[in-house]
Amino acid sequence: MAKLIALYKHPENKEAFDAHYFNVHAPLTAKIPGLREMKVTKVTGSPMGGDGKYYLTCEMHYDSLDALKEGLRSPEGRASGKDLMGFAGDLVTLMIGEEA
Amino acid sequence: MAKLIALYKHPENKEAFDAHYFNVHAPLTAKIPGLREMKVTKVTGSPMGGDGKYYLTCEMHYDSLDALKEGLRSPEGRASGKDLMGFAGDLVTLMIGEEA
Repeated sequence: MAKLIALYKHPENKEAFDAHYFNVHAPLTAKIPGLREMKVTKVTGSPMGGDGKYYLTCEMHYDSLDALKEGLRSPEGRASGKDLMGFAGDLVTLMIGEEA
Repeated sequence: MAKLIALYKHPENKEAFDAHYFNVHAPLTAKIPGLREMKVTKVTGSPMGGDGKYYLTCEMHYDSLDALKEGLRSPEGRASGKDLMGFAGDLVTLMIGEEA
C-alpha cells in the first residue's frame, strides 16, 4: 500500500479554506482512479498546548506506488492537482510514503 | 476517535534513528494505555521529486481526546515522551487531531 500525504499549514481564512476544501477539492480528489481511501484529519492542537503546526492533513491510499503515480497522472489527478495549487499552493506539503 | 500525529524530520543518522525508533521507541509507545492503533509511515519521496519534507510519520489512535490525554499522562506515556525527547526532541512535531 502506498500513500500520498498532504499537510496544510494554517490558512488565513479558515472558513474559505474549509468551504473550498470540503466542497470542491475533496470531491475532485475522490474521483482519482485507483484511490482506495482518503482520510482527512483536522488538527485541533498540540500536546504541548497551542495550535498544531499544521491545520489539516489528508492521507490518500493506493494499492501501490505505481497506482498512486498513475492516479496523479490521470486527468482526474491533474484536475485535483491544478485545483490544489490554485487554492492552497502556498500552504500544502505533499509526501509519498508506505506503511512501515 | 482522536489521534496523535508525530512528524519526524530527516535524521542525520538514519540507521541509528531507525534502530532506536523501531526497537526502543515504538515498543515503549505501544504500551500506552488506551492506544488503539499505531500507524507508522516511512516517507519515500515527494510527487514533485526529491526527498519528502519529513522522514517518518506516526499516527496513534485513541477512542477520544480524553483517552489520548490520559494515555500521555500515564507512566507509560511519560516514559514514551521522555524517550522521544531524548532521541528525537529536535526532529519531532506533535499534533492532536480528529477525523474530519
